[in-house]
Amino acid sequence: MLYPSKAQLRLWNRLGRSKIREEAGLFLAEGLKVVQALLESDWEVQALLTLEGGKEKRAAFLDRLPASLPCYGLTAGEWTGLTQDVSPEGIMAVGRIPPKPTLADMTAGADEGPLLLLHEIRNPGNLGALARSASWFGFSGMILGQGSVDPFNPKAIRASMGSLFSLPFVAGVNLQELIPMLKEEFLVAGSSARAGTLPHPCGGKAALLLGSESHGLPDSLLRMTDEQWHIPRKGAGESLSLPQAAAIMMYEIVREASPRG
Amino acid sequence: MLYPSKAQLRLWNRLGRSKIREEAGLFLAEGLKVVQALLESDWEVQALLTLEGGKEKRAAFLDRLPASLPCYGLTAGEWTGLTQDVSPEGIMAVGRIPPKPTLADMTAGADEGPLLLLHEIRNPGNLGALARSASWFGFSGMILGQGSVDPFNPKAIRASMGSLFSLPFVAGVNLQELIPMLKEEFLVAGSSARAGTLPHPCGGKAALLLGSESHGLPDSLLRMTDEQWHIPRKGAGESLSLPQAAAIMMYEIVREASPRG
Repeated sequence: MLYPSKAQLRLWNRLGRSKIREEAGLFLAEGLKVVQALLESDWEVQALLTLEGGKEKRAAFLDRLPASLPCYGLTAGEWTGLTQDVSPEGIMAVGRIPPKPTLADMTAGADEGPLLLLHEIRNPGNLGALARSASWFGFSGMILGQGSVDPFNPKAIRASMGSLFSLPFVAGVNLQELIPMLKEEFLVAGSSARAGTLPHPCGGKAALLLGSESHGLPDSLLRMTDEQWHIPRKGAGESLSLPQAAAIMMYEIVREASPRG
Repeated sequence: MLYPSKAQLRLWNRLGRSKIREEAGLFLAEGLKVVQALLESDWEVQALLTLEGGKEKRAAFLDRLPASLPCYGLTAGEWTGLTQDVSPEGIMAVGRIPPKPTLADMTAGADEGPLLLLHEIRNPGNLGALARSASWFGFSGMILGQGSVDPFNPKAIRASMGSLFSLPFVAGVNLQELIPMLKEEFLVAGSSARAGTLPHPCGGKAALLLGSESHGLPDSLLRMTDEQWHIPRKGAGESLSLPQAAAIMMYEIVREASPRG
């Protein structure tokens, strides 16, 4: 077990900021399952951090790590600045940000599964939740427009439960320009909180466009889509949360097209 | 604007604990939308709390309150002990816990919409999210087994976005005893992470039984259900979150039964 230098601790603390992550090419991934997923991915792990005085579960995890991976023990005080969790599991990894896939890479993968297009998703918990569902439903990738939270945000990584390490994604894309191009090959469905058809299976290449929970999609983007999908309200509920509405649309878009009862 | 006494502050701080809530018959509801929903419900509000030095949005909200409602200004220090939010909106209400509906009340309402049965949901954020979706999809009520988190937990109230004030619920029910009785009139569908049929519309009286995200439903309960519902994985994702899986099942159970593409 190694002990971190002050400079290391200072850097890790600053990885909460996207500018620093970009400069350093590093990000933080917290939690047993998240770190496990990172280790199983083809992403590079620079170091493993653990809260000293570990529980049995954590010790068993550490025993299985590759011997070549530097592993640092942090005090409770050092941990507090880094953790996202109220009851931390005491396991974190410093991962290296991989090369960005190109838009061409992303659209080429779309035979495997739909694309997820995201407009101004600012809540990192929601972004992580969307990635987790997209990964479950076999989406081939996630394209974020300008103004969304950075997927390497520690809270987004945490909420994705590690899905972001196997779901290709690219951020900062101009969706106004992308959507018309995509439409040449893809059916593009956009979520509308106001009106539209029920989500349904899409056999060929498809993309699902979602906006933020509070603002939804602007008309300028929604009118570009081939279809507007809407989940009708049946009760008194004031709103349906974004991750829940998204999960329903993802479930439907990849469902096999067959009449059901 | 009133200022709270030390005794009041002490009581409000202790309302984070279910035992104290039960003794006092009070709970905390935080956030503009949540408090708005509480004021619009037929529940009783004892007091409104606000963080001093309010923003314009908060001031506009306070101006619209009934004059008869006591409104207390709290300092930032006093607020910290009570808030659930990292960036608090600065609005909270002290609500009175209403009389518990009976199980007979709950099942009598089931012509209006399905019942949600919950087994050992310990995460208050998940419980709130489930209530929010259930309210959107017109469920008639929510029945919690023993070992679930108290729905009056401040985090559950917060995550429900106020849905709990219009969705009848009862906690601490023995599901092992309830389910066989329900089955005389209801179709009872249970969620399984392992196998089962796709969720589908249920025309008559129906109940949806869900377990926790980490443990799912025990076999002892699952084998009592009429149907086991399963959402198949299409991609590499490690797991689907409980609120997302639940939203899909709720969407399906209330959907009109007609063949679709």
